[in-house]
Amino acid sequence: MFRLQPIFFVVGVMVIIIGISMMVPAAVDLAYGNPDWKIFAQASITTIGLGGMACLACRSDIGPRVTARQGYVLTVVSWIAISLTGSLPLWYSSLEISFCDAVFETVSGLTTTGSTILSGLDELPPGLLIWRSIMQWLGGIGIIVTALALLPMMRVGGMQLFQMESSDRSEKLSGRMRDMCLQIVMIYSVLTLVCIVLYRIFGMGWFDAINYGMTTLSTGGYATSDLSFAKFDTSLSLHWIAILFMFFGGLPFTAYAVFLRKRAIKAVIGNQQIKLFCLIIAGFTFLLTLRLLQISDDGFFRSLTMAAFNLVSVITTTGYASGDYLLWGPAAVMLFFFATFIGGCSGSTSGGFKMFRLYVVFTGLRAHFMRLRSPSAVVVSRIDRHEITSDIYNAVTVYVFLLTISYIAVTIALGLTGLDLITSMSAAATALANVGPGLGNIIGPAGNFQSLPDSAKWILDVAMVLGRLEFETLLVLLMPSFWRD
Amino acid sequence: MFRLQPIFFVVGVMVIIIGISMMVPAAVDLAYGNPDWKIFAQASITTIGLGGMACLACRSDIGPRVTARQGYVLTVVSWIAISLTGSLPLWYSSLEISFCDAVFETVSGLTTTGSTILSGLDELPPGLLIWRSIMQWLGGIGIIVTALALLPMMRVGGMQLFQMESSDRSEKLSGRMRDMCLQIVMIYSVLTLVCIVLYRIFGMGWFDAINYGMTTLSTGGYATSDLSFAKFDTSLSLHWIAILFMFFGGLPFTAYAVFLRKRAIKAVIGNQQIKLFCLIIAGFTFLLTLRLLQISDDGFFRSLTMAAFNLVSVITTTGYASGDYLLWGPAAVMLFFFATFIGGCSGSTSGGFKMFRLYVVFTGLRAHFMRLRSPSAVVVSRIDRHEITSDIYNAVTVYVFLLTISYIAVTIALGLTGLDLITSMSAAATALANVGPGLGNIIGPAGNFQSLPDSAKWILDVAMVLGRLEFETLLVLLMPSFWRD
Repeated sequence: MFRLQPIFFVVGVMVIIIGISMMVPAAVDLAYGNPDWKIFAQASITTIGLGGMACLACRSDIGPRVTARQGYVLTVVSWIAISLTGSLPLWYSSLEISFCDAVFETVSGLTTTGSTILSGLDELPPGLLIWRSIMQWLGGIGIIVTALALLPMMRVGGMQLFQMESSDRSEKLSGRMRDMCLQIVMIYSVLTLVCIVLYRIFGMGWFDAINYGMTTLSTGGYATSDLSFAKFDTSLSLHWIAILFMFFGGLPFTAYAVFLRKRAIKAVIGNQQIKLFCLIIAGFTFLLTLRLLQISDDGFFRSLTMAAFNLVSVITTTGYASGDYLLWGPAAVMLFFFATFIGGCSGSTSGGFKMFRLYVVFTGLRAHFMRLRSPSAVVVSRIDRHEITSDIYNAVTVYVFLLTISYIAVTIALGLTGLDLITSMSAAATALANVGPGLGNIIGPAGNFQSLPDSAKWILDVAMVLGRLEFETLLVLLMPSFWRD
Repeated sequence: MFRLQPIFFVVGVMVIIIGISMMVPAAVDLAYGNPDWKIFAQASITTIGLGGMACLACRSDIGPRVTARQGYVLTVVSWIAISLTGSLPLWYSSLEISFCDAVFETVSGLTTTGSTILSGLDELPPGLLIWRSIMQWLGGIGIIVTALALLPMMRVGGMQLFQMESSDRSEKLSGRMRDMCLQIVMIYSVLTLVCIVLYRIFGMGWFDAINYGMTTLSTGGYATSDLSFAKFDTSLSLHWIAILFMFFGGLPFTAYAVFLRKRAIKAVIGNQQIKLFCLIIAGFTFLLTLRLLQISDDGFFRSLTMAAFNLVSVITTTGYASGDYLLWGPAAVMLFFFATFIGGCSGSTSGGFKMFRLYVVFTGLRAHFMRLRSPSAVVVSRIDRHEITSDIYNAVTVYVFLLTISYIAVTIALGLTGLDLITSMSAAATALANVGPGLGNIIGPAGNFQSLPDSAKWILDVAMVLGRLEFETLLVLLMPSFWRD
């Protein structure tokens, strides 16, 4: 039997959390004397009411263990519910944007994508700005917890690898999943706080520091200025704080927990995902720095900063812009295009393909070439201490196929709405990998998603959720056999 | 022990074949009174001489069986040798093109890609035109034989699947590999002849008929006019002959052999690759026809013809153009871009990803989703009657990874030569899949590769051979472990 009640109960709880969070922008607007506070208060009450009703109507025990099937439905239904309720204050606000735009901005926020349909951000009421940042911050921690607690159990995209990690007794990580999640929420909050304080110390105002802090750690990328991070163009130290904390946001949060418990840096630097992540960032930053030294008179340190900032911003799927990298020449543009897909580590706030899958692909290639020479050789590949079984390898290849199929479908669908080739291809990439800006004049780092047709925005909404939920979670619900008992 | 002698002996034989083939354009130019005949005669003698020396120096028995390792080296060395010798007449001809351009045109010809650096084709001496067509025709049969005899043994990209097919006693196909190859050469020749005669009957001159006949069956796409196939814009019947024979060129040639022996159409229509191929062509043609009906006043039959012609031309990796499909709107352009990668059936003259790999991917996805519902289910997938073992599945995934890595590397390398985004991305795709034309103003269906920088042409040379040899064959030679005993 397939019980929906416990699912709707949990969704109700999430909606209530969203509703309570709306109190913050209400309070901010009230403090700044902005009339929008009423909108936020109303939306908050409405949302809490809706969530409360769902909880009351479906009051029920979710039981000792969620089944994989319930996990799929729970994940998808909760994303739809919080996207719709989260968009209420935007829709009713003084901005007078359409429902389509409000949902786009919310989905982009909650998935920590960071594509925006708003312009004139510098003039926006403070409540709206902080609400966008809060959505990204909540989306960020939401996805870490989902990646920790739900996806491994559902064996999505090879993530059963991390099932062992969090439930492995020998690791004595924190015994129970709930403790682990709470611990990670704490770590996430503390890192955000440190980031905010550092931003403040090195020159941002408190309001900017709080907003950028929340969207840096969540690798979301919403800004309080149309200039994005170029608002702080003169302060390279602020850029380096952003680089560091975007990087932190792209690391697996379980590694922090292990580090805290063992108090050993080895737990972090020994992690294969982190090693590969550092290697890729260092290599690409090196190439881009060379390129910038070649085309500008900026000097080494500024070139290094700009190269590292934009690369880390794209590869962690944050999407801050500082300077228009479309002007760095075609090879750099293509490097950014492909980097869009890469993403950070699994169990982080970043989207994209992710380091552990890249690692699985490389070990697969290595094993294949070894077997070409000695066909009977038994090649065992490992990531950290976990064996990469054929199950995990196959799940990763399925992820690759679903990503490819989704990418082609979304690109062609966007083309049908009339968008040009570069806009369609890069919009599909940036949405599926939850990065933010695309390429070209319309949606490039200096651009905006406002002018896209509504149909394109709805397609991108689906793409952002599809990428965020690692494809399978959403696509499996489309299969008739899923619903058969 | 790794013996190179027998390899160079076989390469020598191939070079001699190329040299003898040059007699044909020499004779044609002589008949038309064109002074280039001397160039071809000289090149022919030089080439035969070089090949003869290699044969004499390395006279040796290749033994009853080529090892897989010898197979890799043989394949790669022979492609380099015939590309260099084949370019001699182009280099020394009255065209006065550079060595780089001559090699590009030859590699593009032999790999049946069909990208050209020549313009003013309509005014070109007949010997040169026929030499380009002959290179494609030889390249086409060369790749079928390679795919039949060498790649399965080397287990490249999952092609061990077809090892069974050609050596399976129960199929009683033709007993021995040599008979089978000879039979397929016969089939290829007869189909070419039929195509030529039909072209002649429906309105082409003999010279055009012979040239287009050879480049149609080989799915090469070299034309005798800058207009490509639009030269025959008014004759839809010629278009349909081309559609039919490009399609024939994209079918697995073993299926013809089975058909001839069993005299049963079931052997062909029961073939899974052919089924999928027909399905994809029909589906995409339908969509493109709808699109053409929407944007032009051409009427149903002409729209259908143009849609089918351009789609079949791209998907069989022929690369003839008739009308500029870049004007069909962004969604159609993207469909063509992705169709570039697809390719025809394995064991045909076409390049690209190929039907059997697509089929393996789909069965992999199906098996994965079935196992999500019943984790312990044993799912056995088959193509025709052969089981798709995990070995084959893994080899196909390796092909996917190598294709992706090669594509990214080639695109970025092209960007470094200064080409823009669309040109780089589509040039890399069209070269790796051996299609021919790319997208954009420079190398689009109405364009030409002449204006690319030399560095870009060399990169594309490597890309064309890489794609033609299914990546692994070439890349494995770069691994130090390959050369260790």
